[in-house]
Amino acid sequence: MPKKNEGKKRREEPREPVLRDVLRVPVGEPVDLTSYDARGIPAGPPDKAAGTTATAALGPRLAELQERLYASSTAGDRRRLLLVLQGMDTSGKGGTVKHVIGFLSPSGCRVRAFKAPTAEEKEHPFLWRIEKALPLPGEIGIFDRSHYEDVLVPRVHALVSGSEIKRRYRQINHFEKALADDGVTVVKVFLHLSYEEQRARLLARLDDPDKHWKFSTGDIEERALWPDYRKAYELALERCGTDAAPWYVVPADRKWYRNWAISKLLLEHLEALDPKYPPGDFDVEESRKRLLAS
Amino acid sequence: MPKKNEGKKRREEPREPVLRDVLRVPVGEPVDLTSYDARGIPAGPPDKAAGTTATAALGPRLAELQERLYASSTAGDRRRLLLVLQGMDTSGKGGTVKHVIGFLSPSGCRVRAFKAPTAEEKEHPFLWRIEKALPLPGEIGIFDRSHYEDVLVPRVHALVSGSEIKRRYRQINHFEKALADDGVTVVKVFLHLSYEEQRARLLARLDDPDKHWKFSTGDIEERALWPDYRKAYELALERCGTDAAPWYVVPADRKWYRNWAISKLLLEHLEALDPKYPPGDFDVEESRKRLLAS
Repeated sequence: MPKKNEGKKRREEPREPVLRDVLRVPVGEPVDLTSYDARGIPAGPPDKAAGTTATAALGPRLAELQERLYASSTAGDRRRLLLVLQGMDTSGKGGTVKHVIGFLSPSGCRVRAFKAPTAEEKEHPFLWRIEKALPLPGEIGIFDRSHYEDVLVPRVHALVSGSEIKRRYRQINHFEKALADDGVTVVKVFLHLSYEEQRARLLARLDDPDKHWKFSTGDIEERALWPDYRKAYELALERCGTDAAPWYVVPADRKWYRNWAISKLLLEHLEALDPKYPPGDFDVEESRKRLLAS
Repeated sequence: MPKKNEGKKRREEPREPVLRDVLRVPVGEPVDLTSYDARGIPAGPPDKAAGTTATAALGPRLAELQERLYASSTAGDRRRLLLVLQGMDTSGKGGTVKHVIGFLSPSGCRVRAFKAPTAEEKEHPFLWRIEKALPLPGEIGIFDRSHYEDVLVPRVHALVSGSEIKRRYRQINHFEKALADDGVTVVKVFLHLSYEEQRARLLARLDDPDKHWKFSTGDIEERALWPDYRKAYELALERCGTDAAPWYVVPADRKWYRNWAISKLLLEHLEALDPKYPPGDFDVEESRKRLLAS
């Protein structure tokens, strides 16, 4: 059967693949993270120089779409976006936040880094602290770690039962579906780092005394549990990858690629929302006259 | 009497004035905002080109000091900084937030824009929503509007009695003193805009349909109350300018100057704090060996 566009005049430039489609984890299938290349370049610019240029070029469009999203909310549009960043230690969650927000207006962003739960947080259901940090209509929320920590650490360290973990998967899926129904575009990203690259990044922290505060011997002990964490991530990606809130795997060994991929993913999602500046509800000429007379 | 350094060999370069000293509103004296030039350049680079270059040059030092502040908090240091931005409509509070945060790591920043109080906020004392948004130890908080709105709008529109406004001045002073005692460096900035520049900025919003959402005829009505707002600001600066939390007046008609001045003020305050990277509490060589073997 001939393809739809066959015979039609094609554009000269090769069509850019939709990154969302390339990086999205197929819903309802088992996930094997060893089949993903942490140093890979599954789509996009081929090297660092091209990547850095391409990323910078996305900035103005990202800024404009964020402003449109915010502007639209002032006229009652409830839509917003939530970027969830997960990944092993040193996978670059903080660096990604810093990079992404560089393109955006911070007034319209709600950034939250989730650490180990506080005493108060532990007294509440695990989604309590998440709900308090959600973006408002028009905002872009960015989570550095998230509710997924509650199906990762407890599983690896056997802090709760297997049936409790399964219950949490279901709660997460209901929660994220409700968010999607309320106008939240949930973009969940797993920053995929290799075991070797983590070693290099931890060693770099040891080499620089100004970075020692970022290091603890606990990092080495958690690293020893790498296969368990990988398994916990595979299950989280599999059980909580839904049509309402799919997962994306972003290769994270190369920082320039990670930055490009996250920026592009964000841009594609905002373009899909296509928010509009609301029209003014006033007489422009009349207002101009009044201002000029003031 | 000879000055201390007289006779000593002076450095060749002229000594840069401390901007804090130049812009600080004298404590305990009446404030007359008409004596401040909104287009002035009271210290620093003389023109836009020099200003932009000088501002960019402050970036790396700001980023490093913020990281040190945050790092220090991981070892128990409770110090933090709160930048409070106030000013008339279009004075550039949002633009300042965007500019400043461009230098910082957003994970260590707590940005909050205060709008008209919500129904829930109105049920609480006016400082309630402020307390919830304060920076944690190690963080830099940035307020776009603040508790000062509660002594501005109600005064101009006569929503509360004069004695209530005075009570609020006192509450604010107690509140800010308690913050200072708890390790919070409070930097309060009045972005000083001229009446003429506000007209120009409002007209620019009318000229661009993509900016109509930022405009409402209410802006013209508030503008008609300019002298009342100026008076309310003068009183707030006078009654709530304290040694614990002084006010700074930043000329805001020129955006490049505003950006330089705020960045420099922030830098000077962080330099005064001089936070240090805490030393690691582990054996570096031992950790390196364990990592290399992993």
